[in-house]
Amino acid sequence: MTWLQIKAEDMFCNSSPCCNDAGFLQKNNSLDEKSRMVGAFKESTKNQMCDNSERFTRAETDFSNLFARDLLPAKNGEEPTIQFLLEVVEILTNYVRKTFDRSTKVLDFHHPHQLLEGMEGFNLELSDQPESLEQILVDCRDTLKYGVRTGHPRFFNQLSSGLDIIGLAGEWLTSTANTNMFTYEIAPVFVLMEQLTLKKMREIIGWPNGDGDALFSPGGAISNMYSVMVARYKYFPEVKTKGMSAAPRLVLFTSEYSHYSIKKAGAVLGFGKENVILLKTDERGRVIPADLEAKIIDAKQKGYVPLFVNATAGTTVYGAFDPINDIADICEKYNLWLHVDGAWGGGLLMSRKHRHKLSGIERANSVTWNPHKMMGVPLQCSAILVREKGILQGCNSMCAGYLFQPDKQYDVTYDTGDKAIQCGRHVDIFKFWLMWKAKGTIGFEQHIDRCLELSEYLYNKIKNREGYEMVFEGQPQHTNVCFWYIPPSLRGMPHGDERREKLHRVAPKIKAMMMECGTTMVGYQPQGDKVNFFRMVVSNHAVTKSDIDFLIDEIERLGHDL
Amino acid sequence: MTWLQIKAEDMFCNSSPCCNDAGFLQKNNSLDEKSRMVGAFKESTKNQMCDNSERFTRAETDFSNLFARDLLPAKNGEEPTIQFLLEVVEILTNYVRKTFDRSTKVLDFHHPHQLLEGMEGFNLELSDQPESLEQILVDCRDTLKYGVRTGHPRFFNQLSSGLDIIGLAGEWLTSTANTNMFTYEIAPVFVLMEQLTLKKMREIIGWPNGDGDALFSPGGAISNMYSVMVARYKYFPEVKTKGMSAAPRLVLFTSEYSHYSIKKAGAVLGFGKENVILLKTDERGRVIPADLEAKIIDAKQKGYVPLFVNATAGTTVYGAFDPINDIADICEKYNLWLHVDGAWGGGLLMSRKHRHKLSGIERANSVTWNPHKMMGVPLQCSAILVREKGILQGCNSMCAGYLFQPDKQYDVTYDTGDKAIQCGRHVDIFKFWLMWKAKGTIGFEQHIDRCLELSEYLYNKIKNREGYEMVFEGQPQHTNVCFWYIPPSLRGMPHGDERREKLHRVAPKIKAMMMECGTTMVGYQPQGDKVNFFRMVVSNHAVTKSDIDFLIDEIERLGHDL
Repeated sequence: MTWLQIKAEDMFCNSSPCCNDAGFLQKNNSLDEKSRMVGAFKESTKNQMCDNSERFTRAETDFSNLFARDLLPAKNGEEPTIQFLLEVVEILTNYVRKTFDRSTKVLDFHHPHQLLEGMEGFNLELSDQPESLEQILVDCRDTLKYGVRTGHPRFFNQLSSGLDIIGLAGEWLTSTANTNMFTYEIAPVFVLMEQLTLKKMREIIGWPNGDGDALFSPGGAISNMYSVMVARYKYFPEVKTKGMSAAPRLVLFTSEYSHYSIKKAGAVLGFGKENVILLKTDERGRVIPADLEAKIIDAKQKGYVPLFVNATAGTTVYGAFDPINDIADICEKYNLWLHVDGAWGGGLLMSRKHRHKLSGIERANSVTWNPHKMMGVPLQCSAILVREKGILQGCNSMCAGYLFQPDKQYDVTYDTGDKAIQCGRHVDIFKFWLMWKAKGTIGFEQHIDRCLELSEYLYNKIKNREGYEMVFEGQPQHTNVCFWYIPPSLRGMPHGDERREKLHRVAPKIKAMMMECGTTMVGYQPQGDKVNFFRMVVSNHAVTKSDIDFLIDEIERLGHDL
Repeated sequence: MTWLQIKAEDMFCNSSPCCNDAGFLQKNNSLDEKSRMVGAFKESTKNQMCDNSERFTRAETDFSNLFARDLLPAKNGEEPTIQFLLEVVEILTNYVRKTFDRSTKVLDFHHPHQLLEGMEGFNLELSDQPESLEQILVDCRDTLKYGVRTGHPRFFNQLSSGLDIIGLAGEWLTSTANTNMFTYEIAPVFVLMEQLTLKKMREIIGWPNGDGDALFSPGGAISNMYSVMVARYKYFPEVKTKGMSAAPRLVLFTSEYSHYSIKKAGAVLGFGKENVILLKTDERGRVIPADLEAKIIDAKQKGYVPLFVNATAGTTVYGAFDPINDIADICEKYNLWLHVDGAWGGGLLMSRKHRHKLSGIERANSVTWNPHKMMGVPLQCSAILVREKGILQGCNSMCAGYLFQPDKQYDVTYDTGDKAIQCGRHVDIFKFWLMWKAKGTIGFEQHIDRCLELSEYLYNKIKNREGYEMVFEGQPQHTNVCFWYIPPSLRGMPHGDERREKLHRVAPKIKAMMMECGTTMVGYQPQGDKVNFFRMVVSNHAVTKSDIDFLIDEIERLGHDL
């Protein structure tokens, strides 16, 4: 036994913690008092005895003869359990350390068939018999070795990137607590943290007193789906009971360059993809409000019923912010639900410098906002926020008696499960709450401002550089910088189909080489009539100007001879 | 610097990992070779120098002057980062250790208003300014202190319980990897693990060669929703494009005591709750096949179109298994989609002794199976498995160009994102894969058999005991044991409304006392015309007969004077 404070607690904890007197509804605080005494003892022990000494000791352990069955709850399982977890932690902390080290590769690429065949003994197949803990530790190392370091300062491939240490600690704690958000009963602290954090987010959106309702959901696509469901319930509540046949033909509107989840929600919820009407955008990828109004009028003339408009705050590719106020005016005029998909751009609300880009968001009926994107929170953390209180409950409640008993001893309005389309719900709040505590609102603001500065640096660096063409003119609104790299062989070529076809193949080739080399990763895609171009984004707090420089050097190194 | 192997690696890792020659599509293995050399060095260092010594050292660190901004990626952030994470790990390993210690309370109950007011300085409110890492560590301790120990051997409150150490290690690794399942590109190892594990699950279901398709989804309710979506797509694919108005009035069938998520799926997907037709059950809570057939005929006569039947394998409250083969016969006769909701009971497929209870499951078109319930995998881990390959893709694909580029360098059929209703998808596979490796198929079988033995022990203990009445006769099919505790004051009372009303209040009162005392937790609910009764379930591998005895003693101690 090497944990000094455990010994201290053992001195106090032999009696049963249960209350034996008749006053069973009075909280018995005897254990609390013991805890406080133990706490004090621990402090004094620490102060007197433990300065500069280890508070736990790794014992050299032979894991080759140990199996899962030897860990807790096995008899004498405590020591192997602690040693095993510490060994895992060594693997993980090493991984963390190397993730921030630029001499580490972003990834060690292998094709599916290579990994399936088994890399240097890394066997993915499952078997009937248990493997030793030594093998399990090797498997953990190999899993990380052949994965992708999404926290690496040169990983720019996704809107979600970075590895926040506080958020990571929060996730480790969340997994250890291993509970479920559906009731206050089994997640009292997390339920309250969620409530307070979501209220704070609603205040930041600008809804009076932060009133309204909200939930964390498993990602922005589901959050957007919630918005469509809630809109339908608001205008046609009978659909919940009778189905879509109780409503007229309903249509939804969203930008041609909005996230595909709006169209997916249309398909899933029974509207049909073709009733999701796509709006034209300007050259910067922002919805043209006049096109919205024209299409609303057109739909009404056809006898359809316009229901819902999605305005995107930060499109996936261009990072465009639709003009929310103009769209809100039209929604008010025609009495439509206004949703703002701020999955990507919502984070800018934390910045006094940039939040004007979402001006009008306080007029939205619902908002999607993913802290796991621009705010650097570990995956997954996506909020759906709704201005009208009670409507999530009305829309989704099924009143399951086995879970949401009305005769519990506490205020059951804190049971959130019946508002969700899920039953069990993962604890996504804690890491975010902990990061907010640790950074403060101001820390998020600094993070956002810094990421936008870095993308401005990139934009200024390449906008007039030889071999680059910007996909749209002018400074980007978000961190998205979209550009083509034109290899020397294409620079003199006249614009036309041949050049288009060749240019279309450049980004995939460079990307493939980056991945084979493992030096960096950045996204590319075509959009509309534009052939494949790079989309650079910054959301990782580890990125510096040198990493931006590195990306450009790397594109030129790899693409020069194409 | 106290990590011996880090020093070793530093000796080798100064050069850039990127490949500089023209053969950029050849994998450059120089870093791999270095890693192997480092590995060998580490081994020898360990063997020669480190026997029985620590491989990392906790340095006494004053966290009161450290902030999140001092951690990585900050300059010189490595040491504080490691020390902070180790301090968190101490909190977590202490929590783990105490969770398995029966002298620890299951929970330290407080009402919402008490926690919101701030318990002994535990302040849930967020602020503008950052807090010190010392405060963050205190917040971590307090979060666990006021939570519920779902891994405690006397926590019986939910179908998901227990704290598997391997699964926990898997979750810690998953959070550290912090990636997303949508593409092979950024989650190569996890994508392959998911594929192999889901194939294994399909083999266990009994589908030929394990063929078919599947996904992990955020919980059983979403998995069940997938099954309804896929059924609709199979019979009425035009709904995806045109909406529910392209289909006739479709009806779904499920047990009156099935999980509420089937009804919820009906509401969400636009069928309407009233088109989810509830089937009568026998006295043990199993669907009566004749009632299904009668209701299909009735629906057809009304001009509705029967689409989908859900058979539950392990109902939430009774743990009943619907007779799948009989239901499958009817589904074949009327050409309906058969879904088996095995969220709770699917785990029994791992047991040669108990899998006969799901006999006929291989005839299902789709299956929900939650390893996070009966198999003890940490939350969340729920699979939706579909017999027909390609149908998930057909149903859900939207072909987003920015994510699922067809011109990637690898086989893009490994990109799973377009099969899901989500865009980003949490990595739920790794903990499960790792547990399977560590326990073997045989370990899951032993776990299942043991939990069922324990519930048999409980059943035998109370079935004839004074003061107990069983809610249904005969040995339970699953670990669910449903019973009333009748306090002495009610034992002589004639059956009638007064006794019913009083009995209805017994379970909530005992439960409230349990929670106030923090000694144990078990669920209760009414069902149909049955007043509140206890539902005992076992899925935690830490439970022993002594814990079952304790529960009964505790119910009697707390309920004796009611």
